[in-house]
Amino acid sequence: MKLWTKNTASLKEVEKFTVGRDREFDLMLAPYDVLGNIAHATMLAEIGLLEQSEQNALVAELKNIYKTTVDGTFTIEEDVEDVHSQIEFLLTQALGDIGKKVHSARSRNDQVLVDVKLFLRSEIENVVHSVNELFQLLISKSNEYKDVLLPGYTHLQTAMPSSFGLWLGAYAESLVDDLTVLKSAYDVVNKNPLGSAAGYGSSFPINRTRTTELLGFASLNYNVVYAQMGRGKAERITAMGLANIAETIGKLSMDATLYLSQNFAFISFPPELTTGSSIMPHKKNPDVFELIRSYSNRLKALPNEIMLMTANLPSGYHRDLQLLKENLFPAFKILRDCIQMTELMISHMEVRRDIVEEEKYRYIFSVEEVNKLVLQGVPFRDAYKKTGLDIEAGKFEYSTQIHHTHEGSIGNLCNDKIEDNMRKVLSSFDFETYHTAIGRLLC
Amino acid sequence: MKLWTKNTASLKEVEKFTVGRDREFDLMLAPYDVLGNIAHATMLAEIGLLEQSEQNALVAELKNIYKTTVDGTFTIEEDVEDVHSQIEFLLTQALGDIGKKVHSARSRNDQVLVDVKLFLRSEIENVVHSVNELFQLLISKSNEYKDVLLPGYTHLQTAMPSSFGLWLGAYAESLVDDLTVLKSAYDVVNKNPLGSAAGYGSSFPINRTRTTELLGFASLNYNVVYAQMGRGKAERITAMGLANIAETIGKLSMDATLYLSQNFAFISFPPELTTGSSIMPHKKNPDVFELIRSYSNRLKALPNEIMLMTANLPSGYHRDLQLLKENLFPAFKILRDCIQMTELMISHMEVRRDIVEEEKYRYIFSVEEVNKLVLQGVPFRDAYKKTGLDIEAGKFEYSTQIHHTHEGSIGNLCNDKIEDNMRKVLSSFDFETYHTAIGRLLC
Amino acid sequence: MKLWTKNTASLKEVEKFTVGRDREFDLMLAPYDVLGNIAHATMLAEIGLLEQSEQNALVAELKNIYKTTVDGTFTIEEDVEDVHSQIEFLLTQALGDIGKKVHSARSRNDQVLVDVKLFLRSEIENVVHSVNELFQLLISKSNEYKDVLLPGYTHLQTAMPSSFGLWLGAYAESLVDDLTVLKSAYDVVNKNPLGSAAGYGSSFPINRTRTTELLGFASLNYNVVYAQMGRGKAERITAMGLANIAETIGKLSMDATLYLSQNFAFISFPPELTTGSSIMPHKKNPDVFELIRSYSNRLKALPNEIMLMTANLPSGYHRDLQLLKENLFPAFKILRDCIQMTELMISHMEVRRDIVEEEKYRYIFSVEEVNKLVLQGVPFRDAYKKTGLDIEAGKFEYSTQIHHTHEGSIGNLCNDKIEDNMRKVLSSFDFETYHTAIGRLLC
Amino acid sequence: MKLWTKNTASLKEVEKFTVGRDREFDLMLAPYDVLGNIAHATMLAEIGLLEQSEQNALVAELKNIYKTTVDGTFTIEEDVEDVHSQIEFLLTQALGDIGKKVHSARSRNDQVLVDVKLFLRSEIENVVHSVNELFQLLISKSNEYKDVLLPGYTHLQTAMPSSFGLWLGAYAESLVDDLTVLKSAYDVVNKNPLGSAAGYGSSFPINRTRTTELLGFASLNYNVVYAQMGRGKAERITAMGLANIAETIGKLSMDATLYLSQNFAFISFPPELTTGSSIMPHKKNPDVFELIRSYSNRLKALPNEIMLMTANLPSGYHRDLQLLKENLFPAFKILRDCIQMTELMISHMEVRRDIVEEEKYRYIFSVEEVNKLVLQGVPFRDAYKKTGLDIEAGKFEYSTQIHHTHEGSIGNLCNDKIEDNMRKVLSSFDFETYHTAIGRLLC
Repeated sequence: MKLWTKNTASLKEVEKFTVGRDREFDLMLAPYDVLGNIAHATMLAEIGLLEQSEQNALVAELKNIYKTTVDGTFTIEEDVEDVHSQIEFLLTQALGDIGKKVHSARSRNDQVLVDVKLFLRSEIENVVHSVNELFQLLISKSNEYKDVLLPGYTHLQTAMPSSFGLWLGAYAESLVDDLTVLKSAYDVVNKNPLGSAAGYGSSFPINRTRTTELLGFASLNYNVVYAQMGRGKAERITAMGLANIAETIGKLSMDATLYLSQNFAFISFPPELTTGSSIMPHKKNPDVFELIRSYSNRLKALPNEIMLMTANLPSGYHRDLQLLKENLFPAFKILRDCIQMTELMISHMEVRRDIVEEEKYRYIFSVEEVNKLVLQGVPFRDAYKKTGLDIEAGKFEYSTQIHHTHEGSIGNLCNDKIEDNMRKVLSSFDFETYHTAIGRLLC
Repeated sequence: MKLWTKNTASLKEVEKFTVGRDREFDLMLAPYDVLGNIAHATMLAEIGLLEQSEQNALVAELKNIYKTTVDGTFTIEEDVEDVHSQIEFLLTQALGDIGKKVHSARSRNDQVLVDVKLFLRSEIENVVHSVNELFQLLISKSNEYKDVLLPGYTHLQTAMPSSFGLWLGAYAESLVDDLTVLKSAYDVVNKNPLGSAAGYGSSFPINRTRTTELLGFASLNYNVVYAQMGRGKAERITAMGLANIAETIGKLSMDATLYLSQNFAFISFPPELTTGSSIMPHKKNPDVFELIRSYSNRLKALPNEIMLMTANLPSGYHRDLQLLKENLFPAFKILRDCIQMTELMISHMEVRRDIVEEEKYRYIFSVEEVNKLVLQGVPFRDAYKKTGLDIEAGKFEYSTQIHHTHEGSIGNLCNDKIEDNMRKVLSSFDFETYHTAIGRLLC
Repeated sequence: MKLWTKNTASLKEVEKFTVGRDREFDLMLAPYDVLGNIAHATMLAEIGLLEQSEQNALVAELKNIYKTTVDGTFTIEEDVEDVHSQIEFLLTQALGDIGKKVHSARSRNDQVLVDVKLFLRSEIENVVHSVNELFQLLISKSNEYKDVLLPGYTHLQTAMPSSFGLWLGAYAESLVDDLTVLKSAYDVVNKNPLGSAAGYGSSFPINRTRTTELLGFASLNYNVVYAQMGRGKAERITAMGLANIAETIGKLSMDATLYLSQNFAFISFPPELTTGSSIMPHKKNPDVFELIRSYSNRLKALPNEIMLMTANLPSGYHRDLQLLKENLFPAFKILRDCIQMTELMISHMEVRRDIVEEEKYRYIFSVEEVNKLVLQGVPFRDAYKKTGLDIEAGKFEYSTQIHHTHEGSIGNLCNDKIEDNMRKVLSSFDFETYHTAIGRLLC
Repeated sequence: MKLWTKNTASLKEVEKFTVGRDREFDLMLAPYDVLGNIAHATMLAEIGLLEQSEQNALVAELKNIYKTTVDGTFTIEEDVEDVHSQIEFLLTQALGDIGKKVHSARSRNDQVLVDVKLFLRSEIENVVHSVNELFQLLISKSNEYKDVLLPGYTHLQTAMPSSFGLWLGAYAESLVDDLTVLKSAYDVVNKNPLGSAAGYGSSFPINRTRTTELLGFASLNYNVVYAQMGRGKAERITAMGLANIAETIGKLSMDATLYLSQNFAFISFPPELTTGSSIMPHKKNPDVFELIRSYSNRLKALPNEIMLMTANLPSGYHRDLQLLKENLFPAFKILRDCIQMTELMISHMEVRRDIVEEEKYRYIFSVEEVNKLVLQGVPFRDAYKKTGLDIEAGKFEYSTQIHHTHEGSIGNLCNDKIEDNMRKVLSSFDFETYHTAIGRLLC
C-alpha cells in the first residue's frame, strides 16, 4: 500500500528497491511520528481544520499507538511502505475518514523531517548521559591515580614524567569540549521543521509556532525551503558531533593497547576482559579496545559519507536522502556501546605503580634537572646544554620525586575546574524543557 | 640554525624534508607568536623568573617585532627552522642572554599550540564577519524579491510554487545554524594551552591563569596532556565549522548554475560576471559559481583529511601534526573569497519575474487546488484524488495567485525572526573580550 | 564456545561486544571457509601431517557442510563465536579427534584471510558479469538512438549538439575503464595467504604452493607478514574498484534525473518505473535513479572508511580489522542491485526525438557554422569572431543536420572498437582457471 | 588576455578568482601542451587543414618553446589566463595568422585533457621508478637481515618470532601489489582524449588515431563524451594508485617509530637522521618517519577529496574540475620525496641483533613448543592446552633456534619469487613505446 497510489502500480522490483531497508529503520522513528501526529492534530483543531471531537478521537488513538511503539509491539506491515503510511493506515482503520484528515497541511517530507529531528534530539540526549558517566569515572580514576607516574612520550620517544592522573584527566577534559560541540548540534536539531510540507509551505493557515511549543522545540526552522534543507544537514552536523567523542575514546583505546603491550606493561586487566588466541597460549588481547578504536574510526567516517551522499544536490527534496538513515541511525547505539565498554575497561584497569623506576626511563627526568638549574638562575639554553653534555658523558643524576604545581600539572590536576566546566556544558542542554512538553503531549 | 642543535648536524636532506613548507605557513603565525611571547614574558616577570628590567626589554623588542609582522617586513631567514626560532633569534640578537630567558617554562610544543589557537580564533572572527555580510545581503535580496515566484522542485521535478524570497531567505537562515556550530568551534579554540610545555607541564611555578587573562582566552585547557591533545582537535573542529558554511554556499552555487542554464533561465548576470568559451560564442558560463562549488567541496574534504592524518595516533606530540597547517591555514582565505564572490554574484543577480506564467509549470499549482477543496471541507485524500483525475482528464484549472500565510511561507517569510536569531548567535561570540586583552598587551 | 577458552570465561558483555555482528557476516564466508579447509586438509595429508584416512573423512564431512552452505541450512549456533569455530565444531562432532587435527599449521588469522580473498574473488566475478550486462545494453541502446540529437552541455549551459548515441556510449566506454581497474583489484585479491598462520608462519613443513594450486589462486602472498598485511588492503583496493563503477552509474543517474525534469524533458519512463507524491498529483519522480545515485555515493565513501579504520595501525593483526566486513560485504549486492536497476530503467527509457528543434537550443549549432567557415579557409579566430557578431546582431542562421565523422563523434561512434576493448578486459580476468580448481576440489 | 574575449571585459575580481592558481600549476603542463600542439598540427597538415609550410613553421616554433619548458625559462605572462593561451600567444607573436590556425578542430577542453593525461603518464612513470628503487633496497636489506629475529605482534601483544628479513620483505612485496594497481591507472591514463573538442567532437575530418600514435598513447578514449568524462576520473584513479603506495610506506613508518621507541629499541639511526628537542636533551626523534606517515595520510585523503569535488556533477565540462590540479599535481613530488626519504632511512638503519634474547619475549616461542608436540603426533588442541598449562605453572621451556621452512617463512623468504613478480609488473608498463613516440615527435 502506498499513499500516493493512483491508478497504476509500480513494478515489484521498483517497489522493493525504493523501499529498501526503510521499514527496518522507520521502526526507530515510530514513537516520534506519533508525537508529530498528536501535535499536528492538536494544532489543526485549534485553527479549525479539525472538529474538536475529531481531534479527541485522533489523539486517543495515537496514544494507543504510542504505547505499542514503547512496548515493542508496533510493526510496519509487509505491504506498507513506511512508518508514516502505517500510522495513517492504523488511524483510518480505527476512525475511518477522520483518520484521513490528519494529513492536511502536511507532507511526508515534513513528517520525516520532524521525526528525524525528534529522534536525533532524543539520541543526542542519550549520548550526553553516557558521556557524562564516562567523564565521572575518568575524573574519579584520575584522582585515584594522581600520584602514579608513567613516562610521557613525544614522537613515541620517552620524554618527560607524566602520571595516570594526567592521562585519565586529559580524556575527561576532552569530553567536555566534545559535548560543547555536540551542544551546537543539539541546537541545530532542536528546531521545528513541521509545517514546511514538501519544502515550500502551503496555503493552510497553520500555526507552526504552536507545534513548536507542543513538541518542546527551542525554536523553528522558519523558512520552509531551509526546513527542507535541514535534511542531511542535521544529520551531518550530528555526525560531526559524534565523531569528536569517537575520536576521544578511540585515542584512549590506542593508548590502552600500547600500554597493555608487553613492551610497555603499564596497565593490566582481569582475564575476563581480554581475549585469548587459538595458537598463542599466553596472550591477553585488548580486543575490546581494538574494537572501540575501529568503531570510532567508522563513526569518524560518517560525516564524510553524509557529505558525499548530499554533495552538489540542488535545493529541494531528493530521494537520495532516504539512505542517510542506514549508517547514522545505528551510530548512536554503537557509540554508546563503545562508551560503556570503555567504562567497563577503565573501571577494572589495574595500573603498575613502579613504572618510572625502570632505568630505561631515567632520561625523562632530564628536563627536571635542566629546570632546577634554571630556577637557580642559569639561562635556559646554557642549562639545557649542560644537562645534554652530562648525559653524553654518563654523569647524569636524577630523582623521581617531582614537584609540578602549576594549573593542570601532575601536582595540581585541576579536576575540580574541569568538573565545573562539564557542569556548565551539561546544564546548557536543558533537556527538561522538551521532556515537559512531551510529557504534556502524552498525558 | 636549529634551537636543539647540540654537536651533530642533521643531514641537509633531512633538514629540507622536515622543515618542508613550514617557513611559509609559519609566517601566518608570526604575530600570534609575538603575542604569546609577550604574555609569557609578562607572567615570568610576575612570578620572579625574569627581572622587571629584563621583561621590559623583552616586551619592548617584541612590540618592535610585532610591527614587522603587521607591516609585512617580518621574514624567517633561510637557515632558521621556524617562526619560534626566528623570534628567539631576533630577541637574542637584540638583547643577548635576556633573549634566551624567555624560553623558560615553555616548549615549542605549547608555543605552536598557543600560536595556532590565537590564529584560529582570529580567523574564525574574520569568517564570522564575512558570513554576516553575506547574510545581510541575502535577507535584503529575499525581502526585495519576496513576490517573485519560481517553481519549487522535489526530485528535480516541478512541484509547488516557491519564490525568490524563500530561496534567498533559506540560505540566510542556513548561515545562522552554520554560525551556531562555528561558535562551538570558537569555544573549543578559545582556551589557553600555554604552559603545557611539551605536553606534560613543568616544575616551574608558572601562572597559567594569568597568561589566559593576558591573551584574552575565555578559559584554559587545564590538563596539560589534554592541552597537547588539542593539536589536531582544534583544527578538526574548526574545519568542521568551515565545512558547514562551505556546504551552504556550495548548494547555493549548484542552484545558481541550474537556474542560469538555458533550461531554467530563472536568473541572469551582467556579462562581466560570467565567462565565455573559445569555441561557443553564445555562452555565458557561471564559472564563479562552479569554482565556489568546487572550493566548497574541497573545504568539506578537510575534516576527513585531518582525521586521516591524526587517526590512531596515541596521545603525545607527533611530528605528523606539523602538516595540518598546509591545507587548513589557506582554507580561511579560500572560504572568505568564496563568500565575497557569492556576495558579488548575488548582488548583481537579475531575476525573471514571469517564470511561473509558462505553461510547463502549471501543475505546480495543483496542490493549491487540492488545498482549496480541503479548506472547503473535502477530506484530503479525496481532494487529492479528484485533482489527480482532473489533471489526467485535461480539465485542470488554476490561478498563479497564491496566499500562503503561515510562518516561513511565501507570504510570511519571517526574515525578521531569522535576523533576530542571527543577532543572538553573533552576540554570543563576544570578540570584544579578546580584542580588549590584546589591545592592552600591545599598548 | 570459543576455541581459545582455557580456564576463565570472558564476561558476557565482552563476548557480546567482541562478537558483534560477526555471525551475520561470517555466514557469507561459510562456503569459502569449507573450501579453505578442504585444501588445507588435502595438503596436510600430502605432507604427512594427516593420515590418508583422516583426510578422506574430513573432506567427506566438509563436502556435506559445503552443501548446507549452498542450500542455506548452514547456521552458526548461538554460543559459537564465528564461522571457523562452527565448522571445526561440526567436524569434531562428526569425527572426534580427527576434527581437531585440521587446525594444525594454521591460525584463525590466515583462515579468515583466505576466506575473505575467496569471497572477494567470487564477488568481483559477479560484479564483472553484471557490469558486462549493463555494458551490452548501453551499447545496443547507443546504436539504437545514434541519430537522435540532444543538446550537449558545458557549465550546464547548452553548448553543442550531442546525441543519445554518444551519451549512452560514453557510459558504456566508462565501464571498460572501470573493469580495467577492477581487474587489478582481482589480481591483488587472487593470491593465496593460507599458511601465513598468525602472520609469522610456522615450523610446520607445509606446502603453500600446493594450497595455492588447489584453491585456484594465480599466485601466493609469499611473505607471511605481507600476507597478514593483505587484510584491509585487499578490502581497500576492492572497494576502490567498486567505487569507480559506482561513480559511472551514479553520474548516469544524475544525468537521468536532470533529463527527466520538466525543464529538460529529454526522456521519459512508463509510470510503473517512477513514483508519485502524496501531495503533488502530477509528479513522476525518478526515485530509482536518485537511490542509485545515493547508493553510489555511499559506495564511493567506502575506500575512505576503510582507510580511516586501518590508518596508522602498525603491522600485525589487530581486531579492528574485523569490522571491515560490515560495510564492504553488503556493498557487492548493493552495487549489483544498482546495476540491475540501471538496466531496468535504461531498457524502458523512451527518448524524445525532436529535442534540438526547440528554438532555445539554436546556439548549440553556432560551432557548426564557425567550423564551416574554417573549412572554407577562414582562420579560426576570425570565423569565431564573425559568428559571435552574427549572433549578437540577430543574424545567426543554422541547420540541425550535422556531419561529424571522426572517431568517437556523433556520426562515427566506434562502438565496435569499444566492444573490442571490453572483450579484451573481460578475457583478462580468466575466471575459468579458478572455477576448474574449485570444481576439482568439490568433485 | 583571454582567448574568448569578445566585447566585454570581465571584472578584475572575477578574473582573479577564476584564474586562481592556474598559472602556477599550468607551468607543470607546459611541455605536454607543446607536445599536444605538435601532434595536432602534424595531423591537421596530413588531413589538409594546414599547409605543409604552415605546419613546418608551427612545429619548428613549438620545438623552440619546448626547450624553454625544459630549461625553465618558459613563463606564463601576468595577463595571460593559462598555458594554452600563452602558447597560442607565442605562436601568433612569432608566426602571425598561422599561429591562430592550430586551434582548429580543438577546444581548450580537450587540450587540457590531453595535457593532464600526458602529465599523469609521465609522473606515474617517475613514481614507478622510485618505487622500484625502494623495492630493491628493501629486498637487499631483507636478505641482509634474514637471520635477525624480532618479536612478531598481534593485537600489539608479543606473539610469535618474526625477523627483519620478514619485516622488510613484507613491504617489498606490498610494493608489487601497489604497482599492479598503479598499472591499471596507467592504462586508464594512457588513452588519447585529443579531438573530443568541448566534449562533443566536431565536424572537422580529424584523424584521432593518428594523434594517438604520434603521442604514443596505447589507445584512445573513443567516445568524445567519455573523453570529457575522463577529467576527474583519470585523476581519481591515479590518486587511488598513489594512495596504495602511500599506505605501504606510511605503515612502514608507523612500525619504524614504534621500533625506535625506547620501549622497543629494535632499530636505531645515526644522529644526523633524527632530530632533537628544545627541552629534552636525550631525544632522538623519528621526525622523518612521522612526516612520511603524515604525508601518506594526506595522499590517502586525495581520492576522497576528488570524489567530493566531482560528486553528483552531470556529464559535460564544469569549471569545478580546474581545482583538481591543486592537490593532485604536487602529490607526485610529495610521494617521491617520501619514498626517497624512506630509502635514506632504511639504508642507514641499524638493527639490534639480540632482541629476542630478552626474557620478556620468551612466550613468543610458545607456539614453537606447541608445534613440536603436534609434529610428535599430539592433536593440536591438546598440545595447545598443555603448553598453556605449562606457562601458567611456570614450567615453560624454550629455544630461540627456530626452523621455519615453508614458502614465505623466516627460513625461506622467497625474495627471489617476489623479485620475479616485480619484474613482471614492471615490464607490463611498457614505457618505451611512449618514449619512442615522443622522441620521434621532438626530433
